[in-house]
Amino acid sequence: MALVKWLLRIPAVMGGLLALAIPAFGDPLPAWNDGPAKNAILSFVKAVTDPQSEDFVPPDDRIATFDNDGTLWVEQPMYTQLAFALDRIRELAPAHPEWRDNPVLKAAIDGDLKALAASGMKGLAEVVMATHAGMTPAEFETIVRTWLATARDPKFKRPYTELVYQPMLELLAYLRENGFRTYIISGGGIEFMRPWAREIYGIPPAQVVGSSIRTTFATVDGKPTLTRLPELNFIDDNAGKPVGIHQHIGQRPIAAFGNSDGDLEMLQWVTGGGGRRLGMIVHHTDAGREYAYDRHTAFGRLDKAMDMAPAEGWVLIDMKTDWNQVFPWEK
Amino acid sequence: MALVKWLLRIPAVMGGLLALAIPAFGDPLPAWNDGPAKNAILSFVKAVTDPQSEDFVPPDDRIATFDNDGTLWVEQPMYTQLAFALDRIRELAPAHPEWRDNPVLKAAIDGDLKALAASGMKGLAEVVMATHAGMTPAEFETIVRTWLATARDPKFKRPYTELVYQPMLELLAYLRENGFRTYIISGGGIEFMRPWAREIYGIPPAQVVGSSIRTTFATVDGKPTLTRLPELNFIDDNAGKPVGIHQHIGQRPIAAFGNSDGDLEMLQWVTGGGGRRLGMIVHHTDAGREYAYDRHTAFGRLDKAMDMAPAEGWVLIDMKTDWNQVFPWEK
Repeated sequence: MALVKWLLRIPAVMGGLLALAIPAFGDPLPAWNDGPAKNAILSFVKAVTDPQSEDFVPPDDRIATFDNDGTLWVEQPMYTQLAFALDRIRELAPAHPEWRDNPVLKAAIDGDLKALAASGMKGLAEVVMATHAGMTPAEFETIVRTWLATARDPKFKRPYTELVYQPMLELLAYLRENGFRTYIISGGGIEFMRPWAREIYGIPPAQVVGSSIRTTFATVDGKPTLTRLPELNFIDDNAGKPVGIHQHIGQRPIAAFGNSDGDLEMLQWVTGGGGRRLGMIVHHTDAGREYAYDRHTAFGRLDKAMDMAPAEGWVLIDMKTDWNQVFPWEK
Repeated sequence: MALVKWLLRIPAVMGGLLALAIPAFGDPLPAWNDGPAKNAILSFVKAVTDPQSEDFVPPDDRIATFDNDGTLWVEQPMYTQLAFALDRIRELAPAHPEWRDNPVLKAAIDGDLKALAASGMKGLAEVVMATHAGMTPAEFETIVRTWLATARDPKFKRPYTELVYQPMLELLAYLRENGFRTYIISGGGIEFMRPWAREIYGIPPAQVVGSSIRTTFATVDGKPTLTRLPELNFIDDNAGKPVGIHQHIGQRPIAAFGNSDGDLEMLQWVTGGGGRRLGMIVHHTDAGREYAYDRHTAFGRLDKAMDMAPAEGWVLIDMKTDWNQVFPWEK
């Protein structure tokens, strides 16, 4: 009789499980205010995951790509990786007097951000090569982790890994709960992001795509060794983004999220694929809680992509009105 | 009372489910004979998946990498991709009379395998660039699929995708059931393998790593377009394999499977990582059911890696004695 009694309790047990699961039936995006941006996300996910929908996409093909700087975390007053490179170049400069003969490296050592920004991606790459090469990937990972543990953002006085956008964290989790694989597609260094992307974003190293310097393999002192060289391998920005996507994923994503003209080609590639697609642009409109910038900024310029958005069907996310919370620690 | 009756049947229903599941409790590697190779696999998987084991590896770090040609499918009398390239070059040659001035391309057009093999990876790359470029990746995928649908292997008279090794299919599935992610790390073209690797091996495009030619992005006639260029991008062979692994996975695998000296550096990198590791080499010893070759062969030479295996702890798989079935269609 004990068994029958236990069996009779099953509906109650199941009720308990349902109660536990209730948060899943609540608002999956609580940091987003109701409005066109949130609606665009919810209706897109509903359409591609509903087997009855004509826009249904099987889970294998549910891939969403995210820019990192300015889309998932703060990119002002300069890219975080640039802050890292400047700290490193100041640390290494005394041993490299020849660096002062190179105008870009000199600007970096002197902290001349304007000159640096004017040197473009090529100039930044030069600084990166001088400061990010000559060690194994594992050693570089330790350098990145050590720096992130102590470095603080000048405005918020917090670790950079706390300056991630709560609404985007919710969006990443919501997409994954709906069978999506989420990728970072960033102009930033792939090895600069991989050490912390899993912990902060829930994105494993294999789903981080970024710019890279060349790495070689050799047996050194009897030990199999990878070494980072001061040579450019790949710039994962602008037209490089669709190429990086193709190289690493081998499938065309169905959703893309960016914030600057560097994401324009990714948005074109992803939303130009036919079928139901979602392209969104984080518009930094909140000088109070974060920053306000678009067409006129040294880092993360949003100009052409903003002009193209209406015709392309890309949805702008107005940080000020669409997000009721910007950072995880606000509440 | 109907409900109580139904509930009382639950143990019977569960018994039925258990019966259905029984194959999972049986031998996970039925095509493998008992012996050192099979034992090495079973004891490795047990050690790294048992939370009580000192060799336990969390699921996030369970990564296994597989060479393709000669490890997962047949590579004689020549690499399948070379057979594809030769068919293509003969098809395209009439429109390219200038190709006959290039000794490597001429050898390819004339089917002179010996001269081609002597030209090494560089020569093969030249043939690949002539025949694999000048279209979009989607168009190339269609070309590959179309060829695979009709091409037949000269010895077995079967589609190439049927010439995969049943024991390795079982191994792939067994590792995945135990929380591993399985990757292909091949000297072959990444875009040549991706179209069919999911269906044949259960490996999605993002987990296929291979050699590649350069791809660019541009808007062509108002359409966002990727184009394959006749320029080498990356050779994922020998010392390139650890580099390809690092670039695409960003973590060091704990198990690697190869069959030739082209896999030597991958085996070194994977098994040199400290902790419990597994490195295995498919040794082609079965002239009756497949082929017998190692030190003296144009394609898939196994020489140095075989000499190093005992000291490195790499386990040789003797195809003749370790496998009771070679191909899926044998039984």
